[in-house]
Amino acid sequence: MENKQGEASKKARIELSSLPTRQYLDQTVVPALLTGLNMIARERPADPLAALGNYLLKTANDKAASTSHATTTD
Amino acid sequence: MENKQGEASKKARIELSSLPTRQYLDQTVVPALLTGLNMIARERPADPLAALGNYLLKTANDKAASTSHATTTD
Repeated sequence: MENKQGEASKKARIELSSLPTRQYLDQTVVPALLTGLNMIARERPADPLAALGNYLLKTANDKAASTSHATTTD
Repeated sequence: MENKQGEASKKARIELSSLPTRQYLDQTVVPALLTGLNMIARERPADPLAALGNYLLKTANDKAASTSHATTTD
């Protein structure tokens, strides 16, 4: 089971690498980015760039954690 | 001299807070974001979201350092 999932994610990554720029960005960073931009536009923190950077890192960590546990959240 | 600069940046921040969303984002995060997006589109790192987050944090730190030292780099 875990192996199969590992292979699937490897395959997904290879497919991602061959996508055109726009599709690649849409599938990797754009959803988190839009949420992050909304957040800083609303909160206007003292250091917007750092706030956005931290938000993206946090999202990346959450994503990595939920992928490795393969939990369903519905 | 340092006081004057501190006041100027405080004033700039107050003006930023009153900008419409699009202008606010354009003036705070968009330039670094475009550079970061170009970088990950070119390099396609294993974790694009984390790579972008780290790039933004690095840029924010560089910016803070250059502002507080008020160095010219040309």
